[in-house]
Amino acid sequence: MKTAAEVFHLEKTDGGARAGVVHTEHGKVQTPVFMPVGTQASVKGVSPDELTEMGAQIILGNTYHLVVRPGLEVMQTMGGLHKFMRWDGPILTDSGGFQVFSLAKIREVKDEGVWFSSHVDGKKLFLGPREAVQAQVALGSDIMMAFDECPPWPCAKDVLEKSLERTLRWAKICREEQGATGTKNLLFGIVQGGDQSDLRKKSCEALQEIGFDGYAIGGVSVGEPEKEMMAAIDSSAPHLPVDRPRYVMGLGHPDQMVRMIGKGVDMFDCVLPTRVARNGTACTSTGPASVRKSTWTRDEGPIVEGCRCYTCLRFSRAYIQHLIKAEELLGLRLISLHNLFFNLETLRQARTAILEGRWESWSREFLERYQRGGSSKEEESGDDV
Amino acid sequence: MKTAAEVFHLEKTDGGARAGVVHTEHGKVQTPVFMPVGTQASVKGVSPDELTEMGAQIILGNTYHLVVRPGLEVMQTMGGLHKFMRWDGPILTDSGGFQVFSLAKIREVKDEGVWFSSHVDGKKLFLGPREAVQAQVALGSDIMMAFDECPPWPCAKDVLEKSLERTLRWAKICREEQGATGTKNLLFGIVQGGDQSDLRKKSCEALQEIGFDGYAIGGVSVGEPEKEMMAAIDSSAPHLPVDRPRYVMGLGHPDQMVRMIGKGVDMFDCVLPTRVARNGTACTSTGPASVRKSTWTRDEGPIVEGCRCYTCLRFSRAYIQHLIKAEELLGLRLISLHNLFFNLETLRQARTAILEGRWESWSREFLERYQRGGSSKEEESGDDV
Repeated sequence: MKTAAEVFHLEKTDGGARAGVVHTEHGKVQTPVFMPVGTQASVKGVSPDELTEMGAQIILGNTYHLVVRPGLEVMQTMGGLHKFMRWDGPILTDSGGFQVFSLAKIREVKDEGVWFSSHVDGKKLFLGPREAVQAQVALGSDIMMAFDECPPWPCAKDVLEKSLERTLRWAKICREEQGATGTKNLLFGIVQGGDQSDLRKKSCEALQEIGFDGYAIGGVSVGEPEKEMMAAIDSSAPHLPVDRPRYVMGLGHPDQMVRMIGKGVDMFDCVLPTRVARNGTACTSTGPASVRKSTWTRDEGPIVEGCRCYTCLRFSRAYIQHLIKAEELLGLRLISLHNLFFNLETLRQARTAILEGRWESWSREFLERYQRGGSSKEEESGDDV
Repeated sequence: MKTAAEVFHLEKTDGGARAGVVHTEHGKVQTPVFMPVGTQASVKGVSPDELTEMGAQIILGNTYHLVVRPGLEVMQTMGGLHKFMRWDGPILTDSGGFQVFSLAKIREVKDEGVWFSSHVDGKKLFLGPREAVQAQVALGSDIMMAFDECPPWPCAKDVLEKSLERTLRWAKICREEQGATGTKNLLFGIVQGGDQSDLRKKSCEALQEIGFDGYAIGGVSVGEPEKEMMAAIDSSAPHLPVDRPRYVMGLGHPDQMVRMIGKGVDMFDCVLPTRVARNGTACTSTGPASVRKSTWTRDEGPIVEGCRCYTCLRFSRAYIQHLIKAEELLGLRLISLHNLFFNLETLRQARTAILEGRWESWSREFLERYQRGGSSKEEESGDDV
């Protein structure tokens, strides 16, 4: 484990929002930051060079998916995830716990971990706190996550309590294993506790007792209403140390991220930019827009006026719409490039606003515009075709 | 119609092979040349910048597909195909005839053309020789093709004869329409005649009587054995003028193209590089290779040692295989980039060999290596996994 100063430099706070720098073995990450998700050693449809070009600082890999395919032995032979996928910047990996409980067919949950069958070929595999850290060390992850159990929503309090106890036991083992491997890579603990604020608080305190390089808030965006989601952040963030990075896992919509930055969160990851691209949905400052709108059919303008992404600098709404209607792969890719850029850029602007002491006005204007777009949908006029 | 000297400069012949330059309104094309196919205003999975980077000189568009979707009215509003898809180099378009007869549901074939229903939405449309030229003028095609009927293989001689008569009638109307529109863009006639050498000869002569900017050999690669395919070229190419470009439509495998260059063909287009990529097949100098081979799972080398394409300069066989197994879109794209580069590069090397008077030895060595690979498949060892 590294000291707070080795891991994080808090540059400025403005309101509740923070601007900082996370230090990793593959370089610095300026926060607040959006991290594109490269589930299976690839951010869907996008090359590592395109990620660099759009200003991505750090990306995610999913330990479960990489353990299942191509498998850890191949990953080690190939020199780790960075070399395998040709991404030289920092990589954060999850622990695999979330997918073990959501994707795999579970065979047996034991104190030491979980026997499960791969969702790809049914192969029987074991993942527990020690194995999850070993796997992430083998992948060469710059920021490793502790192996946790992520309860669904809603969930009875006694179940949440038992689950939290297990997660904390596992967190301790992960921390020991990090030390045992001698890795220089960071390990983040994960706050759980569902919608119970006392459990969230307890989780934050217990994790700090163990001591981690940084802290993540997990168990959010698991089907709960947005109000509950924000409450989970409110009952976690204030109990986390100010001198270490804070990461909310698996989120979110641009307006949700902006609101959470205001609650002191530094890092976000989300699959939405590439996932919604597949439905032909583009991210804009007035909310999501369907590229299938009839008003776009002859529109020579870019998806978003003034946007500096590759797609907007080069292609028209009319062409993007044509590609999506014709089911051309290039359409999916061009929207993905725009959507990833939009999320990266939104958080870059948030960072600039914090550094310049304009957080309150910037975030208020952003949220008003985003949510106004969502209700009146002025730009959305025209039937889908 | 332009003079031969305005259209084509024959730089050198070596054996039967030719190196030359075709002049179009969007620039020069050095031949022999491979033309990537952008069916629906997009070369599958590849951006126009990537096409430029890999040295593509000219690409294809399919008139039928663009008439069906987004439709000519949209294409005209958007300023033509070049501006729509952001490709500034020359574009060749087919006439739509092939797809009208193969993809659409035909309603009625008349002397003036064909009433058909779109395969996308069933919309009733009409395409004949005049409409095909008008459509290609509207698209802004640099090299337009005459509207023809492409008989299947095998086909009775009397059917071939009647079809050829119609194609020649249509060719004449296309030529008139080119003149009537006042376009500066080129129009190529299409040789038909199936597997009947006398009909092929008659077709070549009749087309020259009408007079075209260049000549294409059609009705090949329609299911006939390779021997018949080569015979169709042998009974066509010698009857075409030496001072105008010759284009064989819809071909082919690299070895087929090399053999046809030896028969005096200058231009080729084919969907194979991107189509086989979808099955995880990579083009190599020893023939097609499956990226799923077990020997590739831990292979740090590129698809083809020494290949200078983006994919081979950047990514390993192991990673490409992983992407294809994991059904990641990036895999399809990276193999497409390699395969297109391989075909472009093969024809660039052919051109250099012709210009340097090494055609005979270069083509013999290429074909020996390619066909040896195809039989002994030394590199192919290892089970598909």
